[in-house]
Amino acid sequence: MADVQTKNMAESYPVNGGNGPNSYAQNSCYQKEVVDGAKGMITKAIAEKFDIGNPLLDCPNLIRIADFGCSTGPNTFISVQNIIEAIELKHKSTQQNSKTLEFHVFFNDLTSNDFNTLFMSLPPSREYFAAGVPGSFHGRVFPKATLHIAHSSNSLHWLSKIPEEVLDRNSLAWSGKKVHYTGNEKVLEAYSAQFKNDMKTFLSARALEIVSGGVILFFVGGCEDGFLASQTCSSMQFGLLASCLVEMAELGMISEEKVESFNVPIYLTSPKELKEVIETNAEFSIERMENFVPYKNPEMPDCQMLSTHLRVVIEGLISEHFGTEIVEGLFERYTKKMEENYFVFDMKYRQEFVIFVCLKRK
Amino acid sequence: MADVQTKNMAESYPVNGGNGPNSYAQNSCYQKEVVDGAKGMITKAIAEKFDIGNPLLDCPNLIRIADFGCSTGPNTFISVQNIIEAIELKHKSTQQNSKTLEFHVFFNDLTSNDFNTLFMSLPPSREYFAAGVPGSFHGRVFPKATLHIAHSSNSLHWLSKIPEEVLDRNSLAWSGKKVHYTGNEKVLEAYSAQFKNDMKTFLSARALEIVSGGVILFFVGGCEDGFLASQTCSSMQFGLLASCLVEMAELGMISEEKVESFNVPIYLTSPKELKEVIETNAEFSIERMENFVPYKNPEMPDCQMLSTHLRVVIEGLISEHFGTEIVEGLFERYTKKMEENYFVFDMKYRQEFVIFVCLKRK
Repeated sequence: MADVQTKNMAESYPVNGGNGPNSYAQNSCYQKEVVDGAKGMITKAIAEKFDIGNPLLDCPNLIRIADFGCSTGPNTFISVQNIIEAIELKHKSTQQNSKTLEFHVFFNDLTSNDFNTLFMSLPPSREYFAAGVPGSFHGRVFPKATLHIAHSSNSLHWLSKIPEEVLDRNSLAWSGKKVHYTGNEKVLEAYSAQFKNDMKTFLSARALEIVSGGVILFFVGGCEDGFLASQTCSSMQFGLLASCLVEMAELGMISEEKVESFNVPIYLTSPKELKEVIETNAEFSIERMENFVPYKNPEMPDCQMLSTHLRVVIEGLISEHFGTEIVEGLFERYTKKMEENYFVFDMKYRQEFVIFVCLKRK
Repeated sequence: MADVQTKNMAESYPVNGGNGPNSYAQNSCYQKEVVDGAKGMITKAIAEKFDIGNPLLDCPNLIRIADFGCSTGPNTFISVQNIIEAIELKHKSTQQNSKTLEFHVFFNDLTSNDFNTLFMSLPPSREYFAAGVPGSFHGRVFPKATLHIAHSSNSLHWLSKIPEEVLDRNSLAWSGKKVHYTGNEKVLEAYSAQFKNDMKTFLSARALEIVSGGVILFFVGGCEDGFLASQTCSSMQFGLLASCLVEMAELGMISEEKVESFNVPIYLTSPKELKEVIETNAEFSIERMENFVPYKNPEMPDCQMLSTHLRVVIEGLISEHFGTEIVEGLFERYTKKMEENYFVFDMKYRQEFVIFVCLKRK
């Protein structure tokens, strides 16, 4: 059994803070592509599904928006701006009166997230009141029925913890020296069960916090129904990361036991699975659900860039488990490993996409 | 004319962050004495002046509380807890129904405040939803009519900026190598005018944010009406700090010009002055106003402790103006200087106290 991996990840491993060369703030262009691709979907969903004039919404001139898993910016600011513009657009087209709307925007992420960087990066010309909300979105972080719009992008694919059986040598779902569900269906099943549990806790908390008539707009990574998730490009990339760690263990740089007790808590769901888990919560109706592929330049991925992108999101996890001293060497190896195994980028493995979901609180 | 001093201080110089030996979090026991002494006054003011059952308050079961100038904790958590306990007490004694109250607590301070330390220090067993609000309380930081209780302790004596004439060689209010209004009535007048302006902007912003029937509870440093504020113990201590800077300039460690362009933006008002400035805002009624002396052990102050206490609140200011390299030496000198000039602690100069004010939004 592992040591640190059994604790709740939700409070432990945020993305890299600050604004340095290996910060999330400077290396989240993949996430930005999702955010940019999302704009049209957000605008349409708000226009069609969010009823500003609904008498069930309190404070008719005040809209409260929360971004769950905001990280350090700047993507969260773009998402929030897109949401506000969509609401303003709808407000202008539907309201007879000329009352001005006010927006209270809440940026939520783990307590260990770098909120200082987030706050210092807030757009100076923003037309909303901003607040930071520390705490895991798998639990309650807002009072009852106070939110109108909940948003989450690139966050719900993070598991709140690694399932215990994955770290148990005596279990069929033991991941061994693999750090993901690469090629092991039992590990995949355990990840899937954890994801479903996490989505349930996320939705249960939001059901209490969102006013009747309010909406959740979220974006989560997924792959085709029935496609072997463990053979997606992203899972195979984690396979390459695992092989780097195994090499480093063979060279005596880290212990084998540390490799065995390490796993990446990221899971890609499928539209079918996601729909089923949402439907277990009777408080929400699924108003819209669609897949989209935000990636630009899909033919020839840049291995150095992909390596840095992974680094900014999992460096905290790696450092905590193996020590900070291995980080630089690991990601150098990983870049090289991807270049040597370019077949993982073959289009037949690239079955991942982003699932956009709009839910309405009944 | 000064350089950095002319910029708006409100966005620039928070207290020392983190949890280290020179952090505010570890050296705010003076402020804690104010907080502890305040508990009874808060409880009484809420019992008598805050009307939970007032139909003008929206969301009858949700109370929104904001602490303005929260710093990094732990004092803000004690204040908030005191307020919540006072409301719960009143709720239990006055409500027929057994509905549970929810509390949404907003911690406000300058954007450059160390919110990461604040969030990591949040009491794990708190029974409220917490949010951080970055931005100067001299401007709007909340939507209209959404707060029920505003609190501020040990913050409103900070001026938002040093008045321009204090830094102008050609003005009668030029402070020269003094860093405060020590012994110069014209400088004192300029500080007073800035304080009054700051209180006005604070109250104007809160008048919009607080619901009708809501209250402001605040604590601010003051001295007796008519007492020469420039001869209070605290102003004389700033005089000693100035003499340390002058010595360091004579030794060539810092430039004379730097000393001349530096001032400490702290002002102690008087009950009469404070009452007058509050009365210029027609939206609030003064419900309570009283002075109290929170200091324990007043006979023999500990110079080392006083020196560290000043350091944690103005180190940012000093570093920004003179460079971080002088901080250690300056505060060593300052401790020694206080020991050599112990007369400043004579009871006849110790005319400072804390003024507690309870205002109600009409």
